[in-house]
Amino acid sequence: MKLARFDHDGTISAGVVVDGGIVDLSRTNCAFRDIEAIIAGGEEALAAVRAATAGVAPHVPLAHVRLLAPYHPANYLAIGMNYGKHVAEAQRLGVEKPQYQYWFNKQITCIAGPYDDVDPGVSEALDYEVELGVVIGREAKNVKAGDALGYIFGYVVANDFSARDWQRHCPTFTIGKSFDTHGPIGPWIVTADEIPDPQALDLRCLVNGEVRQQSNTANMLFSVAQQIEYLSTAFTLKPGDLLATGTPEGVGVAMQPPVFLQEGDVVRCEVEGIGMIENKVAARK
Amino acid sequence: MKLARFDHDGTISAGVVVDGGIVDLSRTNCAFRDIEAIIAGGEEALAAVRAATAGVAPHVPLAHVRLLAPYHPANYLAIGMNYGKHVAEAQRLGVEKPQYQYWFNKQITCIAGPYDDVDPGVSEALDYEVELGVVIGREAKNVKAGDALGYIFGYVVANDFSARDWQRHCPTFTIGKSFDTHGPIGPWIVTADEIPDPQALDLRCLVNGEVRQQSNTANMLFSVAQQIEYLSTAFTLKPGDLLATGTPEGVGVAMQPPVFLQEGDVVRCEVEGIGMIENKVAARK
Repeated sequence: MKLARFDHDGTISAGVVVDGGIVDLSRTNCAFRDIEAIIAGGEEALAAVRAATAGVAPHVPLAHVRLLAPYHPANYLAIGMNYGKHVAEAQRLGVEKPQYQYWFNKQITCIAGPYDDVDPGVSEALDYEVELGVVIGREAKNVKAGDALGYIFGYVVANDFSARDWQRHCPTFTIGKSFDTHGPIGPWIVTADEIPDPQALDLRCLVNGEVRQQSNTANMLFSVAQQIEYLSTAFTLKPGDLLATGTPEGVGVAMQPPVFLQEGDVVRCEVEGIGMIENKVAARK
Repeated sequence: MKLARFDHDGTISAGVVVDGGIVDLSRTNCAFRDIEAIIAGGEEALAAVRAATAGVAPHVPLAHVRLLAPYHPANYLAIGMNYGKHVAEAQRLGVEKPQYQYWFNKQITCIAGPYDDVDPGVSEALDYEVELGVVIGREAKNVKAGDALGYIFGYVVANDFSARDWQRHCPTFTIGKSFDTHGPIGPWIVTADEIPDPQALDLRCLVNGEVRQQSNTANMLFSVAQQIEYLSTAFTLKPGDLLATGTPEGVGVAMQPPVFLQEGDVVRCEVEGIGMIENKVAARK
């Protein structure tokens, strides 16, 4: 099931994407009307959404709506250096090869819609990072990798936009990873039942149509399941927490010479089985 | 004004601390009944709380309640290496002296009450860090240091408990700074009007009555105002966001040899003008 949040003629609703259109939950008898509530409601909520939308024809074509960030996570964690060839390109830039999983936070204020503009802000070194995004579905503490996929609600495409100049201020990465608008996600949440193996998905990133990143989630150094195990050993993951699971090689900062995004560039991120998001670089007035 | 959240005979309320007791907002005609709502309501909400509690005798003595975390922030940022002598002791341990402000996130799931137990979890190197905590009161983007204090709602005492062994996994600090229970705050929020100068406060940390940290916020390398300027240059701070503003020298990991907290140890953190929090080390069963 693909769960989307959308603006149709100025009204914001949540719905289920089918056949090129959206079944608007607010026009069904479903008790769950927003995606945060569906995530919090777990299996029961998903069953209610399925029941209320089964056989219902789309209320509105996708072409007539603006898709928004499907939800707003309460916490957004991202792992760095999680594809071997990306580690190699980062090492050339002086980043140490990690021994453990390399987690940082993106501030939740950076969340943006799948087709929103991305604002460089004060950065002069804006860069892209396509990633598989994981939405946690159940409270997770001390979860073993073998059980971890059962804690996933669904998946999104994420672009972990990075202000490389500000990222270099500090080895924690905090300031450069969280500029406002630098966390577009979407285009919808694909529920976990549709992605039986998150480690077998092609993903790529294109800038103005040119392929810059192209890999497969099979190339992750730490799998999604290992990520959930590691984090939940230390602290509790909550339903709705968002994990960006790493980016493959091909980022602009590692090109020789480095190439950063410019005003007007269009960055498209795709993950197999989920869809694509596309963001244009445009400074806010 | 001191705003507290408390449990009295199993009922949780918010209130104003006066004369050794608490005026329970739920027993007044105040429209604001929890501290998140008061923060979101800004000056108008504060005025309503003042009006509703003026001259009202405390409903319950402090000794009869259990103080809880005064509120739950939606985002919790903390700055490392922000007192000169602490930078020196950290450098001896191999941490690089920062050129810029050294921010990391504590996951919001780590928030705990001012007198709650702290659980080492899987860490064998639990350590303390007394800090002045700043509660943001207004949405802040591109705020200059000269205006920054006007964006503060109030202050808390914070102990940035740190699992040093896990902190060393990664230069981002993420995993070792956010264990469940490792973010006690309180004992209440002191509103900004009572702290005219946040850079003139004594603070100290005692373990089992022995003074381990003792300094003054005048010794910060980056002032609270500079912190708000720096962060808000990159991203928007929201009302209720919590900033831990750095810890002075004297942490256990920098003692020679290092001394970590043990089961049963009692850690007391004090900040002048705010109060004290005290947490006992006790593994959860």
